Amino acid sequence: MITTIAFDIYGTLIDPNEVNTSIEKFTGLKAGDFMEVWRNKQLEYSFRRGLMKDYVPFPVCTLNALEFADTYFETQLTDADKKELMEVWKKLPAYNDVKSGLKALKNGGVNIYAFSNGRKEDIKHLLEKADILDLFDGTVSVETVRSFKPDPAVYEFLAGESGSGKSHTWLVSSNPFDVIGAIKSGLKTAWLKRNPSQVFDPWGVSPDVVTDNILGLQKLIAGKTNSGVSPDNAAL
Amino acid sequence: MITTIAFDIYGTLIDPNEVNTSIEKFTGLKAGDFMEVWRNKQLEYSFRRGLMKDYVPFPVCTLNALEFADTYFETQLTDADKKELMEVWKKLPAYNDVKSGLKALKNGGVNIYAFSNGRKEDIKHLLEKADILDLFDGTVSVETVRSFKPDPAVYEFLAGESGSGKSHTWLVSSNPFDVIGAIKSGLKTAWLKRNPSQVFDPWGVSPDVVTDNILGLQKLIAGKTNSGVSPDNAAL
Repeated sequence: MITTIAFDIYGTLIDPNEVNTSIEKFTGLKAGDFMEVWRNKQLEYSFRRGLMKDYVPFPVCTLNALEFADTYFETQLTDADKKELMEVWKKLPAYNDVKSGLKALKNGGVNIYAFSNGRKEDIKHLLEKADILDLFDGTVSVETVRSFKPDPAVYEFLAGESGSGKSHTWLVSSNPFDVIGAIKSGLKTAWLKRNPSQVFDPWGVSPDVVTDNILGLQKLIAGKTNSGVSPDNAAL
Repeated sequence: MITTIAFDIYGTLIDPNEVNTSIEKFTGLKAGDFMEVWRNKQLEYSFRRGLMKDYVPFPVCTLNALEFADTYFETQLTDADKKELMEVWKKLPAYNDVKSGLKALKNGGVNIYAFSNGRKEDIKHLLEKADILDLFDGTVSVETVRSFKPDPAVYEFLAGESGSGKSHTWLVSSNPFDVIGAIKSGLKTAWLKRNPSQVFDPWGVSPDVVTDNILGLQKLIAGKTNSGVSPDNAAL
């Protein structure tokens, strides 16, 4: 059975640092703190919306979280400011290792999927802008399930869409909550630890693979998979 | 129909500041930051466990969050240190307004419930230590439902247990996520804004009542309830 490797997007393939740079214009020195609150609330809102069975498209979580941060930091952003900040998420660059890493995996004979909390159209648009869309065999959005990661239903849906079954579907993410959700749902997992100081939640479970970039991923995954990934075929 | 007023515990009735004081012994100046990360992760873990349908007793969320904070801040707490910090949560004092506020509500002829993410036995023990247990008509724990706030199932369960029905059951909480969960489930709500700088999540919904202490709660609730609360009977 052919292996599917599904990638989370933000922080995993796409570098969100440019959002931080844009925030500086509005908040000055507080940019780092503002970004942290915005991102944490964005995720918290998705967890709570999922738990409440009160789905909204992910950009609503992002906007509500921005409004929270604006009130919290008393930055008094105008509607135009908020619109400008929301737009930044749509045109971020991929990390340096992504294009060659994905190509190597593709040459190794696996399916590559994008798997995100975002809307399908937004994901495609973002990957196209980052010039990597043509490397994917498919995109899977939680919007079909109307819930958010780490709801088991979204990982079940991914495994179904991939056609590889749970035991041959990998989730690669820089977000520990995403990795743990996939582990608990029976998928194979790789934690992409892009930030060396990031902490993996101490829940008594571990990813199959831990790495700091995509280039080394193929061999690591091949070592943990019985079929479908052949490192010898790869342009590594 | 008699009105039920269900109170959240930590931050609403019980003052968690003493946890902060105990942390200082281990972390020094970082105590405030440590406490914030510990508390935020504790809640995040409960949201994620609820969403993942992977229930664990709430103290497991609290301990895992403490372990996360310990790694994040590199505080190298021993098992004995962690045990000491976990114990502090079991014997915290009530806020100053709580005893007289609850008595006034009780004299006004409403049912008073404790409603918490904590285990039923732990809630009772905590309220007994704080010398307010005898003021409650009942305690409702999420452990029966095996999920966490703000899962609609836990508010449905509360309304069922209270015997007051949704339209006569109030949730009083200092936590906006709890208030929003109750609103979305059709309960009446009061946001106890104990911290003047706290931000209510901008989700387009509002509590029926906002107040900064329990003493004024009875009149506010009476103004929003057709029956069951009589401010004239109260010892206010």
